[in-house]
Amino acid sequence: MRLPKKERQRLIKKAFSDDPFITDEEMAKRCGVSIQTIRLDRMELGIPELRERIKHMAENNFDRVRSLALEEVIGEVIDIQLDHSGISIFEIKKEHVFARNRIARGHYLFAQANSLAVAIVDAEVALTASAGIRFVRPVRLGEKCIAYAQVFNKQSSRLQINVQTKVNGEIVFQGVFDVYRAEEDGWVK
Amino acid sequence: MRLPKKERQRLIKKAFSDDPFITDEEMAKRCGVSIQTIRLDRMELGIPELRERIKHMAENNFDRVRSLALEEVIGEVIDIQLDHSGISIFEIKKEHVFARNRIARGHYLFAQANSLAVAIVDAEVALTASAGIRFVRPVRLGEKCIAYAQVFNKQSSRLQINVQTKVNGEIVFQGVFDVYRAEEDGWVK
Repeated sequence: MRLPKKERQRLIKKAFSDDPFITDEEMAKRCGVSIQTIRLDRMELGIPELRERIKHMAENNFDRVRSLALEEVIGEVIDIQLDHSGISIFEIKKEHVFARNRIARGHYLFAQANSLAVAIVDAEVALTASAGIRFVRPVRLGEKCIAYAQVFNKQSSRLQINVQTKVNGEIVFQGVFDVYRAEEDGWVK
Repeated sequence: MRLPKKERQRLIKKAFSDDPFITDEEMAKRCGVSIQTIRLDRMELGIPELRERIKHMAENNFDRVRSLALEEVIGEVIDIQLDHSGISIFEIKKEHVFARNRIARGHYLFAQANSLAVAIVDAEVALTASAGIRFVRPVRLGEKCIAYAQVFNKQSSRLQINVQTKVNGEIVFQGVFDVYRAEEDGWVK
């Protein structure tokens, strides 16, 4: 059953505000309408397209990454709140998949999550001590992976960080990272 | 206290037979003698140098990797026994370390271990479902990481694989990988 337009636009507005990274394709699927309809809805509602939404987020001031060079983060950093949270986007390209089945190789998802976890640590030196990870579903060529990192246990010398990676709002990877930190003159006590 | 030569050569013979990847440097440190002495000892004992030992192992027939292309394994595969065990070597080069402190980035150690775990699976398709990993000590530029994978729980659709990565006999990384497998025509029941 198709929703009335008003109802659909309410849904769209809420969905994009909950998760600015949803694609028009995904939204069209959710509403059971064409991509073109979603585009028109977005225009009427004044919601910019995905690329613009991402650019806008990236232009917002976010904390300066301390523990590594920004270009050492695997994926594009969208938001960093030191010792608190971070978001990055990583698009699965040809060089990231198995030739045979075009499924993304696990270590790229790991690298995105791990480097984001290290990036949000407020210290000169941060090293992963251990991690427990789960590949929830295979990720395929062309999919955009959005990693959300969140500190859930913060101590002076050690942080525990939860990372969830989603494609179109669906969890594809989950990890808990235990990261140690130090200042240049030695390990934080 | 320096060991008598006979005693030292006995030690060297045993050490190289236990772990053919030990470097002369490491062996010299263990025996408290110069690298040159170790080289002479090896010649007397007929133990080839590290490069030759590795080449020899690599030339031995090992099982054909099925789940991915051999060049998709991160590191050089030295031995593969399908559904049983495997060994690979990965040398930490400039592109694998943090610019700031020359410590190897965690995802390369993960990639070596994970791809070896997948490589030893006897199936057309093998995907990591989950993993628990530990970075035991930082690995530095120039170090040679030798990963040893061992299946410890084998079911038709799923394997549990333990991977230990060592540098000069010292554990630097440890992981347990849960890998699912399928044949091309569907998941193994």
